[in-house]
Parts: sequence; C-alpha cells; structure tokens
Amino acid sequence: MSIENTVQQFNQKVSHISALNGALGLIHWDGATGAPKASIDMRSRNIGILGGEAFKMSVDPAFKELVKEICDNKDEVDSVTYETARLYLKDIEKTEKIPPQEMQAYMELRSKSQQVWEEAREKDDFNLFAPYLKKVYEYAIKFAEYTGYKDHPYNAVLDMFEEGITVADLDAFFAELKETIVPLLKRIQKEGRTLRTDFLSRKYDIEAQKKLNMELLDLIGFDLNRGMMKESAHPFTLNLNVNDVRLTTRYIEDQMASAIFSTFHEGGHGIYEQNIDTKYDGTPVANGTSMGIHESQSRFFENVLGRSEALWQYLYPTVQKAFPEQLGDVTAEEFYLGINNAKASLIRVEADELTYSLHIMIRYEIEKGLFEGSIDMDRLPEIWNAKYEEYLGITPPSDADGVLQDVHWSDGLIGYFPSYALGNAYASQFVHKMEEELDLDALMAEGNYQPICDWLKREIHQFGSTQSPKEIIERVTGEPLNAKYFTDYLKKKFEKIYF
Amino acid sequence: MSIENTVQQFNQKVSHISALNGALGLIHWDGATGAPKASIDMRSRNIGILGGEAFKMSVDPAFKELVKEICDNKDEVDSVTYETARLYLKDIEKTEKIPPQEMQAYMELRSKSQQVWEEAREKDDFNLFAPYLKKVYEYAIKFAEYTGYKDHPYNAVLDMFEEGITVADLDAFFAELKETIVPLLKRIQKEGRTLRTDFLSRKYDIEAQKKLNMELLDLIGFDLNRGMMKESAHPFTLNLNVNDVRLTTRYIEDQMASAIFSTFHEGGHGIYEQNIDTKYDGTPVANGTSMGIHESQSRFFENVLGRSEALWQYLYPTVQKAFPEQLGDVTAEEFYLGINNAKASLIRVEADELTYSLHIMIRYEIEKGLFEGSIDMDRLPEIWNAKYEEYLGITPPSDADGVLQDVHWSDGLIGYFPSYALGNAYASQFVHKMEEELDLDALMAEGNYQPICDWLKREIHQFGSTQSPKEIIERVTGEPLNAKYFTDYLKKKFEKIYF
Repeated sequence: MSIENTVQQFNQKVSHISALNGALGLIHWDGATGAPKASIDMRSRNIGILGGEAFKMSVDPAFKELVKEICDNKDEVDSVTYETARLYLKDIEKTEKIPPQEMQAYMELRSKSQQVWEEAREKDDFNLFAPYLKKVYEYAIKFAEYTGYKDHPYNAVLDMFEEGITVADLDAFFAELKETIVPLLKRIQKEGRTLRTDFLSRKYDIEAQKKLNMELLDLIGFDLNRGMMKESAHPFTLNLNVNDVRLTTRYIEDQMASAIFSTFHEGGHGIYEQNIDTKYDGTPVANGTSMGIHESQSRFFENVLGRSEALWQYLYPTVQKAFPEQLGDVTAEEFYLGINNAKASLIRVEADELTYSLHIMIRYEIEKGLFEGSIDMDRLPEIWNAKYEEYLGITPPSDADGVLQDVHWSDGLIGYFPSYALGNAYASQFVHKMEEELDLDALMAEGNYQPICDWLKREIHQFGSTQSPKEIIERVTGEPLNAKYFTDYLKKKFEKIYF
Repeated sequence: MSIENTVQQFNQKVSHISALNGALGLIHWDGATGAPKASIDMRSRNIGILGGEAFKMSVDPAFKELVKEICDNKDEVDSVTYETARLYLKDIEKTEKIPPQEMQAYMELRSKSQQVWEEAREKDDFNLFAPYLKKVYEYAIKFAEYTGYKDHPYNAVLDMFEEGITVADLDAFFAELKETIVPLLKRIQKEGRTLRTDFLSRKYDIEAQKKLNMELLDLIGFDLNRGMMKESAHPFTLNLNVNDVRLTTRYIEDQMASAIFSTFHEGGHGIYEQNIDTKYDGTPVANGTSMGIHESQSRFFENVLGRSEALWQYLYPTVQKAFPEQLGDVTAEEFYLGINNAKASLIRVEADELTYSLHIMIRYEIEKGLFEGSIDMDRLPEIWNAKYEEYLGITPPSDADGVLQDVHWSDGLIGYFPSYALGNAYASQFVHKMEEELDLDALMAEGNYQPICDWLKREIHQFGSTQSPKEIIERVTGEPLNAKYFTDYLKKKFEKIYF
C-alpha cells in the first residue's frame, strides 16, 4: 500500500473513532445536564455499544499496522497525521502489554470495588472496602511489572497520568512543601489574624449568580461562541472538539464563592482546550497533554488569577453591584481576604489554596508506601489519621471523612492524585516565567486578560498533546519542575494575608 | 446457522443501528437547542460519519440475509424480533428497487435544490427554482416506476409516507372538503360575526409563558420523567427512545397562543411516542407508524382538545391567573373564541383549524397534476394563485408568499403534504369512536385527561409501527377513512362560533 493510501485509511479511522467519541461525550454531557431521569437504561446501553465500537477500532491489529507504518515514515507524512499516529502508538504499546483477560477482570473488579466503596463510606466501615482495595493494588502493581518502569514501580502508574514525572521528582516536591507549608500553616493557626467570612454564607439569588458567573467566564477569556456553561452536581469540563468546549458549574444559595471558583477552575480547563491549534481538531492530539498540565491551567485561573488581590480590585465593584444587599457592608479588601481564608480541614475538595496540596501529599505518601509494601493496608485508617494530625493538626472523627472520602482508589486511579498538586506547582513556575514578559498584577487590576491568554496559548495551549508535561515545563521555563516557585508564592501571599 | 443464532446476530445489529440513531438524534437535538454556534462543522462531519455507518449497516447484504431468515421463520422467533425484521424488510425491499447511483444523484440534486429554493424564495423568483423542481419530479416519477404502484403513479409516493392510502382515498376526502368547508368559509367571510382577538397580541412575559407551558404539557399527560421540553426556532418532537421523548416549543412575547398550541401539538406527538409498548424499545418498531397517524395525535391535542370550549372552561382561570394584567378584561368565552378565529390566509403554517386543510388540498391537487402531466410546471405560480383565489378567496401578492413558501418540494417531499390533512381526518374519526366510550367534553371540563390518554394508548399508541395506518383506522373505528367525521366536526364547531 502506498503511504498516501495508508494516511488516507488511517485518517478515516481516526475520524470515525473521533465521531464515536464525540457522540459518547455528548451523551455524557446530556446525562449530566438535564436528560430525563428514566432515560438512564438506554443511555447506558448506547454508551456500551458505541464505546465498545470505539475501543474495538482503536485496538484493531489492522489499525495498529497503519499507525506503525505512519510512525515509521515520519518524513513522508504531514505533521498532524504523524503526531496523531505517535499518540496512538504510545497508547497501543501500553495497552497491549497487559493480557486482555486480566484487563477485563480488572475492569470488573473496579466496577464492583466502586459499589463496595460507596457502601463502606455510607456505613463508615473501612474493613468492608479493604479487601477490594488490596486487590486493586495487586493489579496496579502487577500491571506496573507488565508495562515496566525505571527505578520505582510507582513510576509506572505516575507515567500513565503525568508522563515523565517520577518518584524522585515528587519526593523533592513534597519535601519542599513539608518544609515550608506545614510550618506556615501551624504559624497561621497559632498567631494569624482572624479574617471576616460572614458575608460568604449569606443568601445569594441563584438566577443572579448565574448571570454573574456567565459574565465572569466571558471576562477571563472563555469564548462562548465556541463553548457553553451549564450546571451539574459535580462541575466538569468536556471538550467535544476545539470549537465545542463545555463546562458546568454548581450554584449554592448560601455559598456564592463556590460557583465563582468552580467557574474560574473549569473555565481554565476550557480555555486550554479552546486554544489548541485547530489543525489537530478531530484527532486525539486536540486534548490537553496531561492531567497535571490541565490542572495547572484550571488552578491558574481559579487561584493565581481568581483569588488575587489585583483581580478583586478590578472585579469587586461588579460583584458588589450584582449583590448590593449582601455585600453593601463589605469592602473589596474584606472580600479578597474572606475568599482566601486558610483553615486546616478534613475534606480535600473543600480545601483552600494553602492547605490543598497537603491533602495530596498525604495521599501520595500512602500510595507510594502501599506500592513499596512499607504500609500495611489494614492499618490505613490509623496511618491516614496520623498524617492529618501531623501535617494539618486535625484528626478525622470518622473514616467516611477520612480515608474513605475519595472515589479515586476504588476506581483504580492510583498515581492520579499527584497531578492535582503538580498542577499548582506548574502554575507557579509558569507564572514566574510569564512575569518576565507581563505585569500580571497591572493587567488583572485593569481586567485585561487577553495578553495573559495569548501568552498561555503561545507557550502551552496551542500544542495540544504533542509535547509531554516534562517537555513543556522545561521548554517554557528553562528548567525542570521546581517546587520553590509554588512555595514562595504561597509564603508571600499568605504571610501578607495573615501577619 | 441456527435460528437462535440468527436472532442473536440480528438483534445485536439492530441495537447497534439503534445506538447510532440515538446518537444522531441527540446530536440533532443538541444542535437545535443550544450547542455553541461554532460547533456546526464538526457536528456535520460527525453526522455524516455516524449516519453513513448506520445506513451501511442497514443495507448490508449480510443483514438482509438475517432479516429474511427471521421473516421466513415467524413461528420460531419472538414477536418483537419478527416485527422488527418485517419492518426492515419492507424498507430494504423499497430501497433496493432504486439503483444506488440514481439514489446518490437524487440526494445531490435535493441538496442543491434546497439551496436554489432558498435563493428563489428570497428573490421571489420561481423561474430560478422551476428547472430544479422539474428534475425532482422526474426522479420522483421514475422512482415510482421502479417501486411500482396500483392504479396511479402518485400512489407510489403516497405509500412512502402513508402506507395503503391512495389517490382514490384522497380524491374522495378532498371532494368532501371542497363541498363543505369551502362554502362554509365563504359564508363566514360574508356574514360571520367578528371575534375579539386584541388580547392575543399583548405582551406576555417569556419566563411566565415557559412556566405555564410546562404546566400545560404535564396536564395533558406528557410524562416529564420520561421526556423534556426546551425551545427551538422550529418546534419539533424527537423520540430518542420510549423513555426519552423530547419536544421543543417557541415563545413569542406578543403571540402567547403560539407557544400554547405548539406545546399541545408537539405534546401530542410526544405522548404517542411515550405510550408505545416498551418491549419494542431500541428497535425501529418503537416509532409512530406513519406521518398521518402521528399528525392525528398532535392535531387531536392541539385542536380537538386544545381549542375546545370544554378545555378552556377548565383551563382559563389558570391562564388568566398567570397573566392577570393581560387577561383581566377577557372572559373565558372571549378567549375560546379568539383562539378559534378563522380567517383565510396565505401561509399554511399560520393557518387556523378551519382553513388549514384547504392549503393542503391545493398542494395535493398540484402534486397529482404534476405527476399525471396535466399541470405545466412553468405555469405553477399562476395555477397556485388561482387555487388560493378559488378556495380561500385571496391571492398571494408574491410567489415567496405563494408557491415558494414551503421547503418540502425542494427536498423531494412529494406525497408528504396529504398526511397533514389526513391527520385531521383521522383525529375526528377516532374522536367519534372514542365518544362511544368517553364523555370527552365532561372529562375536559374537569381537566381529567387520563381516561383519554388511556384510550389512545390502548387503541393506537401501544402498537408502535406494527400496524399500518389503514389497519389502525379500520380496527379502531370499524370503517376505512371517512372524511365526513372531520367535516361534520368543523361545521358544527365553526357554525356555532360564527353564527
């Protein structure tokens, strides 16, 4: 077969898989944002059929032949086709190392394990869940052996979510965190001033919140001609394609800040997807490159911009005007401080900017320990609680609010949590570089986000999945991951706020 | 292959086609109800890919073999499988009579023809469109020869939309209409009293209209757990499956009745789909059986129920309460009369209950004449205008508001218009039968729709596509189509209103 022919056949299959994935994405979106309740059975059936078809196409040996043919002839094919094939090849080579019947058994275990986790959390009984979590780890460790790794088996699972990031990177990263943030938090707990937060739990009309959040989304640079925002129980971002990126947020009457920071967070994910070079559209290259880089963008918009003093100088009058009754007696300064109130808490998803990464550190230490065999699964609740006491100064009153709080492990997402913390670190490292070129505070204070979005597009977004997180961070900032930028940022910000 | 094997393979393919069609339906829904503007290109691409796949599967010779095997072994397969196969066989046998390359050329012609029609209507220039309409008719006539017919070639196209209905049926039907409704309209125009309609064009808040219409939809028996209603430029009904039936309506500030009757109309289509026996779900049997029977249900809810005096006795206080300012000076009787104002008009889609079928009659006479060759295409505007003058007493000032007003012909929809009028006729014939069992007026006057919906489900809805329109009308009413019921209904209703 001529290479032209190969390219044509390959691209046809890519388009077909992409059309199926687009349909699956839309079915998911529809299910989360308002499909009729009773439609769930047929939706599940259709997801099974179309998802199965997309999977079958992507693991078809004939497809692999096309992929390899293209990867072997880089110079004779266009760059989009090549990048697409390269991405598929990486996936195929990972997938095919695992015997299909073991993967099948693992999928079934995960499904069952999630059910058991739900029950265990409800009953606050870790012992129910422990045998399943043990099996999940057994698979994860076995699969790490199949796929192979350097230095540490945990590197195999890390690589699935954050290609190139290793235990060595994370150890250094969390050591830095432990050395600076843990003492800073203790100092704040002891001698930090008390911030006013009463106004955040006043009642804010939902319709008015909706209007405000749509304005905020537009303001930070999300293009509403090429995307939309609705509501769902758990906010998420979905890129159907480069010109159709969808977000959700969630409105709570007496927690107005909740929707705003969800909007900023998902908006950051969305802006990343919208800024990918359109030439990749309809291929898997048109996705953010990793969980960590994605999270760096959402955290940048949520925290670095979204919880900055400069932004609220500009923005506060708009918000105050939208809620004159609730915010009439609150100054811009008080608002800024209130949304940055740092407080050790039990639940990761409710944590503030300062303490969030400490929650991740605990999960990382446990995951690594379980992989190494240095932690005994049956003692997990005890170990969990001791770490919360050590790093955050609080002890969960129950496992439901402790070791059982997150769904991730039950679903086999091991090695996934670190990307949340990496996102924060990447963001600070990018910002440090960005500030060589842009006066961020000045831009935010005048509500001028275009130069910021342009910088992110030029340096990060446009490339989609063509570069690994490691490649991006080193190309953009000129050095590998360096946690210093993040801890410096936190120290500077929170010392000013609290002392 | 054993018959069990055949059934299994067949049902797998049916589910796969159904999943693809479900995805296509959802993509269509999403596009019409709020997808981002810029998403249109990828949506078109995906519709092409997934629609092509569904089509390929349904015309695959191996699939036909399965279908035939099942149809030949009716006694050995379950009834749902048999009915599904029978429906596919009918389709396949029709499709395969037309040479694929001619079908392809015809599809391309239709696409081009729609563009030209749009331009012609904009420029008010029928001559632009005439050569394309000629070609569309040439194909329609040629295809009629391929598929075959009894008595009259137009029967072939009629059969595509309303199986079993013939030119003889329609000639009798429209003759009855011409004899009764045309003189009735002329008498109303001459000596009918003037009805008050000023209140219908007052300003009605859109949000309040939405709330009211959702209540009305619920009231007439549409199940909002198994369906939903949103808004779109052109109201439509989409059955993704029996438990997921979706409608749209359209809100216009100074035409409050517009949304109400759209809601009733689409609600009627939707209730039909929701009431199909769930055992057929996920197969093409789970669809209303024909355009005409579908239209009989929508017209029943829109007109027979929706524009009845009894309904508004019950309903008016609710509507008046929702709009106290706009309706404070309007009595229930005035409201009922206002929404039944009958007036000859140029545009079919805006026509009232009395004159609507006359618009259809004109289209039927023209379609049949063009098929027979008794009408000269180049003289169409002239012929159109003469018929409007003869039957409705008005002459279109332009072809844009005359012969060029409907998209249907440009899209090859010849033989389709009659089903709109048949729907009205079927509805009256059903009602006549229903009244042997139920006191419709009494039920409506107390807002008790359940017995009416139950009757429709039992007699018509549950069967999906297992029975032809002819079979249904004869089984339910004990006689073939009889236009008398419709004209009697109109005469009785409108004589009481106007004299």
